[in-house]
Amino acid sequence: MSKELPTREANYSEWYNELVGKADLAEHSAVKGCMVIKPYGYAIWEKMQQALDKMFKETGHVNAYFPLFVPKSLFEAEEKNAEGFAKECAVVTHYRLKTDENNKGKLIVDPEAKLSEELVVRPTSEAIIWNTYKGWIQSYRDLPILINQWANVVRWEMRTRLFLRTAEFLWQEGHTAHATKEEAIEETEKMLNVYAHFAETFMAMPVIKGLKTPNERFAGADETYCIEAMMQDGKALQAGTSHFLGQNFAKAFDVKFANKEGKQDFVWATSWGVSTRLMGALIMSHSDDKGLVLPPKLAPFQVVIVPIYKGEEQLTQIDEVANKMKKAMEAKGISVKYDNRDTQRPGWKFAEYELKGVPVRIAIGARDLENGTVEVARRDTMEKETLQQADIENKVEHLLAQIQDNLYQKALNMRETRTYVADTYDEFKRILEETPGFVMAHWDGTSETEQRIKEETKATIRCIPLNNKQEAGKCILTGKPSAQRVVFAKAY
Amino acid sequence: MSKELPTREANYSEWYNELVGKADLAEHSAVKGCMVIKPYGYAIWEKMQQALDKMFKETGHVNAYFPLFVPKSLFEAEEKNAEGFAKECAVVTHYRLKTDENNKGKLIVDPEAKLSEELVVRPTSEAIIWNTYKGWIQSYRDLPILINQWANVVRWEMRTRLFLRTAEFLWQEGHTAHATKEEAIEETEKMLNVYAHFAETFMAMPVIKGLKTPNERFAGADETYCIEAMMQDGKALQAGTSHFLGQNFAKAFDVKFANKEGKQDFVWATSWGVSTRLMGALIMSHSDDKGLVLPPKLAPFQVVIVPIYKGEEQLTQIDEVANKMKKAMEAKGISVKYDNRDTQRPGWKFAEYELKGVPVRIAIGARDLENGTVEVARRDTMEKETLQQADIENKVEHLLAQIQDNLYQKALNMRETRTYVADTYDEFKRILEETPGFVMAHWDGTSETEQRIKEETKATIRCIPLNNKQEAGKCILTGKPSAQRVVFAKAY
Repeated sequence: MSKELPTREANYSEWYNELVGKADLAEHSAVKGCMVIKPYGYAIWEKMQQALDKMFKETGHVNAYFPLFVPKSLFEAEEKNAEGFAKECAVVTHYRLKTDENNKGKLIVDPEAKLSEELVVRPTSEAIIWNTYKGWIQSYRDLPILINQWANVVRWEMRTRLFLRTAEFLWQEGHTAHATKEEAIEETEKMLNVYAHFAETFMAMPVIKGLKTPNERFAGADETYCIEAMMQDGKALQAGTSHFLGQNFAKAFDVKFANKEGKQDFVWATSWGVSTRLMGALIMSHSDDKGLVLPPKLAPFQVVIVPIYKGEEQLTQIDEVANKMKKAMEAKGISVKYDNRDTQRPGWKFAEYELKGVPVRIAIGARDLENGTVEVARRDTMEKETLQQADIENKVEHLLAQIQDNLYQKALNMRETRTYVADTYDEFKRILEETPGFVMAHWDGTSETEQRIKEETKATIRCIPLNNKQEAGKCILTGKPSAQRVVFAKAY
Repeated sequence: MSKELPTREANYSEWYNELVGKADLAEHSAVKGCMVIKPYGYAIWEKMQQALDKMFKETGHVNAYFPLFVPKSLFEAEEKNAEGFAKECAVVTHYRLKTDENNKGKLIVDPEAKLSEELVVRPTSEAIIWNTYKGWIQSYRDLPILINQWANVVRWEMRTRLFLRTAEFLWQEGHTAHATKEEAIEETEKMLNVYAHFAETFMAMPVIKGLKTPNERFAGADETYCIEAMMQDGKALQAGTSHFLGQNFAKAFDVKFANKEGKQDFVWATSWGVSTRLMGALIMSHSDDKGLVLPPKLAPFQVVIVPIYKGEEQLTQIDEVANKMKKAMEAKGISVKYDNRDTQRPGWKFAEYELKGVPVRIAIGARDLENGTVEVARRDTMEKETLQQADIENKVEHLLAQIQDNLYQKALNMRETRTYVADTYDEFKRILEETPGFVMAHWDGTSETEQRIKEETKATIRCIPLNNKQEAGKCILTGKPSAQRVVFAKAY
């Protein structure tokens, strides 16, 4: 298989698909719409999980686990939520297979093992969780409940793309219960900030924090907060959402508590989640025509050392130097792979680790042994320099921090360059056509206008930014008055 | 709700059920057979996961993720495996719900969204994984593949018990592919040893390593290795299994490789797993009539500090001492909770942390402030002693190690005391009736005998111990010659 990728310019979509496969991140499975996350891809997801899990725990959350299945009667309890997900859910109707009498070695669904009530494979867990919380909450002393769950969910998608849109995906979903509206909103915003911090600090991916329009809200939420990132093709990607659920689920599942005054009230709720979709966002934020580019904080290994040698004796000498450097770097918390396999040539290894986005490559050859040097190459800029071996661990530590910063800055610059202001519908359409990106434009606040713009241009309102500048203007479509610009873009 | 438990002697089974509920470990959900793992229970499971995951990685394994669903045609490919699981699998037949026209607000399965091929919710992943490996393996250079997956699986159970037997459970499943039979067997045994080491070192639970009889083998395996533990009621619990799968799955999915000589051969396979069932084993190994007893290495927090005070001023003084101790202990890697809530009395807290099995409790009162002392109580023996505050972190570290050892030793003593030798069938039956435990007895090696003993006594052959002493004897049932004793017991 050729390691060559199509260029982003030639075919961005094809570039993405090929990259996901060739960098060993994921592949399609025999199950329509479901993916296999391969070890290298999963190692990146584990890094994301660890960082997020730590942040959730630091903000007072604990993990738990709720059932994969939701009985249909619970699923339909919160009507908007049910309506939102009914069209895309996998349904278990039977609990047994039996031998096909007419077809040796084959199995058929046993009609006698039909469930009296169908089970929905969770597309999200509000229903099953709020049905459980009902038993846990009697008084204000039982609140808040701050629970997160790492799980798989299923939303039946007809058109799928690895990581970005799959029928089954992995995610975390936080579900919290509060005594007051204020506290629940505070929680919703707190977790949005956690997501934004994660995206910017770990993924090196700048995001805009904002509110979704009613059209784009989570089914069952009173308000949906989101973080939106820009991919290298100028399209937007929703990277995380945090929902203020009001008392909708408490009412649907009759979850009341006695407040300090002994009065009964419905409980206030939030939910928030990010998923393996972040893998897609990470790939499309930084990678280039040579392959993946990973921010050091999420790279399965941050440094690879490749020996360039002739004969056993030279290799033995290089091994010694390399292992010493590896140990010194590991003592500083840097993850290092030393690849001294004799089955592949250095050139092949260089290409392989470029494709896999390893942030720093160190090469050591015979001359380096003589001079006490190494060649250090950074993946983000492809720059190389020769450095003294002495103190390499501190130099590399510094370099990794530089790379992390540079990736963020580069992505931020791109977003700023490709964020436009449009005051007329013609201008709006021209920008979307010629230089796709984020378009800041006035909108009259109606669903009808939003819908018509979407139909005519494929651009949606990504969000109404938080702390948005208030500025009187006219809706680009209807000319009606507007108090602020919102972010429009074509989106994944 | 009363915190009182039934005693183990009065009703062991009831004691277990109540303990799981009252210690906030898990509860039944609205979905038949599925459990909710509550935060305190999940925190123990996370500790298990972390320890196991580290051991898997240290032995060269990497994590990945495969789909939840298995298309029926793949599921039935390995016939024995399919036959073994067909009777207990959840089947997805539809991918959409729709509004019930005759019943406002209700949903029904949309008959037009019937899948052309049913999907089985994985009861185990050999089928989907070997179908994937087919695409990954061409030559010996692609081997071995050493992959583990953390996932949920579903096996439809009619009679369920929290942790021990549930329709959905969490587990890890390793699936490895090898070029030779020897290497695959070596891997099978290596992972059995990892499980045994984990059980004994972390869970403080002694286990017997052995082979299952053909009757009790995993469906699709050539050989099943297991670790068997004894619970406090003398019953056995299978705590982990490691399967040598031969070339069965490679043949079912046509997975061949070119060996070094260029010859095509089928790939050799293993799989191995432990599940949330270990939670049940942990609970039943050490806990007592006062509640949970946790080995320090798996306790969500190892030490709890409880202040005993009158008035704000005393509390402030105690806070200072307690926080200092907490910090000193945490610096040594000990996890500590300081519970200075003013909503509960010390007596309530003592009972609560006993119920939750916190290994060490430290109480500080007014007199302790004067004397520079604390009262230290260990959960395993319920012994208390007064110690100087100075150097408390080293004393507690030592104490935690002692508790870990003591729990193991106590469990080992129990198992040794309750392991019997029977030479006649009468004796065998009398032991099982009067003093349930492990019974070492001769067996003629046939499935018929094994089956008849099971029907007549409910005891099964738990395993043929590895490195078993060879000793000529006569089968307790048939009198036929036997070369070694095997382990019989009633089991969970």
